Amino acid sequence: MPYGYHGEILHVDLTTGKLEVEEPDETFYRKYMGGSAMGTYYLLKHTPPGADPLGPENTLSLMVGPITGVPISGQSRVAATAKSPLSSLAGESAGGGFWPAELKFAGFDGIVLHGRAERPVYLWVHDGEAELRDAAHLWGQFTADVEDAIREELGNRRIHVLQCGPAAEKGVRFGALISNANRANGRGGMGTVMASKNLKAVAVRGRDRPELADPEAVKALAKWGAEHAGEGWVLGTAGSVLPQSKTGGLPTRNWSSGTFEGAEAISGERIVETIQKARDTCFGCVVRCKSVVEVTGGPFPVDPRYGGPEYETLATMGSYCGVSDLAAIARANQLCNMYGMDTISCGATIAWAMDCFEQGLLTPEDTDGVVLRFGNAEALVQMVERIGEREGFGRVLGEGSVRAAEILGVGHDLVVAVKGRELPAHMPQVKRGLALIYAVNPGGADHTVFEHDPSYIDQAERLAALDLLDPQPADVLNAEKVRYALYTQIVNSCTDSVCLCWFVFGGAWQLYDTSQIVKVIRAVTGWNVSLWELMKVGERRLNLLRAFNAREGVGAEADTVPPKLLIPLQGGASDGVTVTAEEVETAKSLYYQMAGWDENGRPTRAKLEELALGWVADELGL
Amino acid sequence: MPYGYHGEILHVDLTTGKLEVEEPDETFYRKYMGGSAMGTYYLLKHTPPGADPLGPENTLSLMVGPITGVPISGQSRVAATAKSPLSSLAGESAGGGFWPAELKFAGFDGIVLHGRAERPVYLWVHDGEAELRDAAHLWGQFTADVEDAIREELGNRRIHVLQCGPAAEKGVRFGALISNANRANGRGGMGTVMASKNLKAVAVRGRDRPELADPEAVKALAKWGAEHAGEGWVLGTAGSVLPQSKTGGLPTRNWSSGTFEGAEAISGERIVETIQKARDTCFGCVVRCKSVVEVTGGPFPVDPRYGGPEYETLATMGSYCGVSDLAAIARANQLCNMYGMDTISCGATIAWAMDCFEQGLLTPEDTDGVVLRFGNAEALVQMVERIGEREGFGRVLGEGSVRAAEILGVGHDLVVAVKGRELPAHMPQVKRGLALIYAVNPGGADHTVFEHDPSYIDQAERLAALDLLDPQPADVLNAEKVRYALYTQIVNSCTDSVCLCWFVFGGAWQLYDTSQIVKVIRAVTGWNVSLWELMKVGERRLNLLRAFNAREGVGAEADTVPPKLLIPLQGGASDGVTVTAEEVETAKSLYYQMAGWDENGRPTRAKLEELALGWVADELGL
Repeated sequence: MPYGYHGEILHVDLTTGKLEVEEPDETFYRKYMGGSAMGTYYLLKHTPPGADPLGPENTLSLMVGPITGVPISGQSRVAATAKSPLSSLAGESAGGGFWPAELKFAGFDGIVLHGRAERPVYLWVHDGEAELRDAAHLWGQFTADVEDAIREELGNRRIHVLQCGPAAEKGVRFGALISNANRANGRGGMGTVMASKNLKAVAVRGRDRPELADPEAVKALAKWGAEHAGEGWVLGTAGSVLPQSKTGGLPTRNWSSGTFEGAEAISGERIVETIQKARDTCFGCVVRCKSVVEVTGGPFPVDPRYGGPEYETLATMGSYCGVSDLAAIARANQLCNMYGMDTISCGATIAWAMDCFEQGLLTPEDTDGVVLRFGNAEALVQMVERIGEREGFGRVLGEGSVRAAEILGVGHDLVVAVKGRELPAHMPQVKRGLALIYAVNPGGADHTVFEHDPSYIDQAERLAALDLLDPQPADVLNAEKVRYALYTQIVNSCTDSVCLCWFVFGGAWQLYDTSQIVKVIRAVTGWNVSLWELMKVGERRLNLLRAFNAREGVGAEADTVPPKLLIPLQGGASDGVTVTAEEVETAKSLYYQMAGWDENGRPTRAKLEELALGWVADELGL
Repeated sequence: MPYGYHGEILHVDLTTGKLEVEEPDETFYRKYMGGSAMGTYYLLKHTPPGADPLGPENTLSLMVGPITGVPISGQSRVAATAKSPLSSLAGESAGGGFWPAELKFAGFDGIVLHGRAERPVYLWVHDGEAELRDAAHLWGQFTADVEDAIREELGNRRIHVLQCGPAAEKGVRFGALISNANRANGRGGMGTVMASKNLKAVAVRGRDRPELADPEAVKALAKWGAEHAGEGWVLGTAGSVLPQSKTGGLPTRNWSSGTFEGAEAISGERIVETIQKARDTCFGCVVRCKSVVEVTGGPFPVDPRYGGPEYETLATMGSYCGVSDLAAIARANQLCNMYGMDTISCGATIAWAMDCFEQGLLTPEDTDGVVLRFGNAEALVQMVERIGEREGFGRVLGEGSVRAAEILGVGHDLVVAVKGRELPAHMPQVKRGLALIYAVNPGGADHTVFEHDPSYIDQAERLAALDLLDPQPADVLNAEKVRYALYTQIVNSCTDSVCLCWFVFGGAWQLYDTSQIVKVIRAVTGWNVSLWELMKVGERRLNLLRAFNAREGVGAEADTVPPKLLIPLQGGASDGVTVTAEEVETAKSLYYQMAGWDENGRPTRAKLEELALGWVADELGL
């Protein structure tokens, strides 16, 4: 059994109630590492082509990695992988908190959930054991209440719970997995998949920590991190609101503008000054990037148990909707966490509906009388709740913007989504590489797969280790930027597979640099890993995801740019700026070739063989 | 100016006598590092398509790297790069000794030699300065004498001299560059190119050591190496003779067998017991892998100044020719070093002629009366001398085996060469990946471009860092072995560009492992390099070489397997074993795709762009 792992993967067949433990060999662990790569391995192996994402044939994996639970910053992450109900393609989503570390302590490197239970159940995993328990009494409850109830009935306050919420139970397609009532594996409807299996939650607890290869080296790296973290990330992701708006990169009024006049009102600085009650963190992490907010009284009360809005939520519920009422945004965030919904897809879908409403494509008759105008904070909060309840017009929006446009027969050109996944709050118009990466990412538009910081030069030394030596401006999409997109996508694909936090390791806040990623993995596993090897793990994940889509018969035709991005932005630093379809098509073609894919964007046998994935080529009949 | 470098490349136009210093920027240094990658950069830039390899248009680069001259084992290496007179394609050859470190101390990171002098000259480089000096009196002299003469006339015994020998002056196509009278940049006729420029030698001396980014870290790594080297590599490369023969992998009688009955007589063990006088080393290296031999009296006296035979020489002059007389082999080695010839091409060409003779295709009438039978030690030594003098039948053999077969009109099927370069002493029949790599290597058959050790499992941990996780038997050529061939080719391509000794860093003797390569480069340069970045440098070199060939109009058709390899071997452990043309063609096609080349084996624009080599794609008109 390799250091840093238990060597045990728990398989749960919800249909039969059978629990089995798989013990893969060490090469398997080193080849797939964990997280998203390992999850996608199981997805390809166990979810047959054409499976209904909400049917029993879909497989949902919850995978951690070798570093998860090790006392160092940025390691408590879990990847959820399944066929997505939004795209009917490979879907995955990463989340943090305390649950991932606790799953590790409970004795497993990951859980694969198969089938569908007859009645609501939850999975209780503790100290190397697992059982399914009745969850009828938890069905329909809000996330914080479910957590309390499970802790109480199992008699342990230290239990951590990852669950789908009532929204997912009701069939909202962008249901998230929620832990701690305030952390989400938000994107791609992973919560909806869990609910479709009649599985309410996975509760974990244990004290079983895998042995480390070099505990002293781990300790030294943790100490180094603690010494260099200073006060941590004081503003957290919310600190991005102002700079994004300033550079014209804050999506505003459903991506009509990149500059929001209300940016200051919804900024991280404003949160700290006004509604912040505390700072929170994930297991073992000194960065403490989470803002916990509280609002008492007023039209939008906020319970601190549900955390506080991240940058993405401030944008999607704020600038996307033209809303500058911080309490309303924080309330919308709470509702998403209560109901278990992705704040990005939820806010973006409402912004789309507002755009339709403003353009007269929707009227109060369609929207249950709600005046869905940009800037209407009350309407926003009301609509989030209706989506969570899957009530009236909320039932339509709960399908996501792509399906809502189809159902309503309006606003197709106003949808800002790729592969059914609404765009996060980073604008391809000003960070041009994102136009490509949103299009080609197998899981749909995603902001975590790409080095999207425009201040390339600030990070020159880090990027140089990726062989990205020539600084490029943010607003071009030349051949060098295609390379930049691919390599950063691969390195992020690797951190998602080792299951490290991209903020802490190598990315945005960058406590540890690329070479320290290598060091940490070495210290924990004892493997003589190199960044080359880790990049190959990242490429492996990317190709597994892409192969899954190819097996579904989907390739280049799904790698699209939302039409709204082709329309000039209005106002601010990005006034008049647009992405062109031509530049993306040119970049796509070059990207496919660089990635080793055919002109349809599907992995070739040669690329799969190069990644020691010959079995995938066989699976695809190549 | 980056740490570890001078930031100065010396350009010498021998036609005009003009000397110029180029000062590339830091990105250039980090992108090409040095050695072969940098040399090939200059080759592509300065040698026009269709240039005569022996004409003034050819460019010869002598490049060192960031670690060269740093007091640590395995760093004193120089890469010579030019269009090869054997292949009329890209040619390069690496060599060690003291000259590389001394070039660095003389103040330059490399020298590019253009044009052709009217009369013989030599280049004197010292303390950041350079001048061309008359060499009329040195022309035709043996290497050791030339070295003495230059040291004497410049009044400094510490000068090091890299020179072509009299063989190259006379036009022998496999002329080597010799330093210390016993170290060679042997392969591909780099000495012949130097001689064709009327340049006799490059003499270097200086005290200018570039600043190191982290001298303490360098010292620690050097100390670690000294502590772990033990007695060093006692048998040196000669230690391979016995194991190679035992596994049926010692080319015998022009590749008719893989087992030589005289193996013990020519083994490293026997050298140590009998003719070894001393052990020698390269600048700063504790490994001391060089055997210095002496033979006094008898038919084959050997002067220790000319060193001793390496494994390749023991094979090509020994088993290739069926010769088991150690003194004769050592004498042949001395003659090659005196005349400045590649021992591999020289011995292999004689072996080819012996094969022809044995088969009655050549008679004593053709061979100036010499009875060129396998096992005839006297004939071997005689023929080496005649080749060096370019006399009689030696004149024909000095063209190399490919041209000799053409000139004589016999034995085409007995030639064991690719792209005009005779095969070194590692057999594709038993290390199957070599069948592929000999075929596809841009410089022709080469044993230093591939992890050719069959004991893959012994090196499992090291190879795992290259993402080669599944041990493979030596005698298969499956998809995983193609990957193994490509990745190890890339990592060796990197060490050839950083200019590190493959025996010491990562390879055969492996004092330092892959992660320590990264550490050493970091400590010296201060760059945050990763193995990913280094592998990309390796790929860059490989693609530059391949692009040079493509510009010459040459692709897949030159990637061939010598027909002799398709004939079953006789006797020993590899009795009956053969390579098949089909397996190589299948592997070639997969390899091209993995490498990002088209079906003609030429780099695609996408691959070149991926390596930040858009300018090369432009150059090729892609």
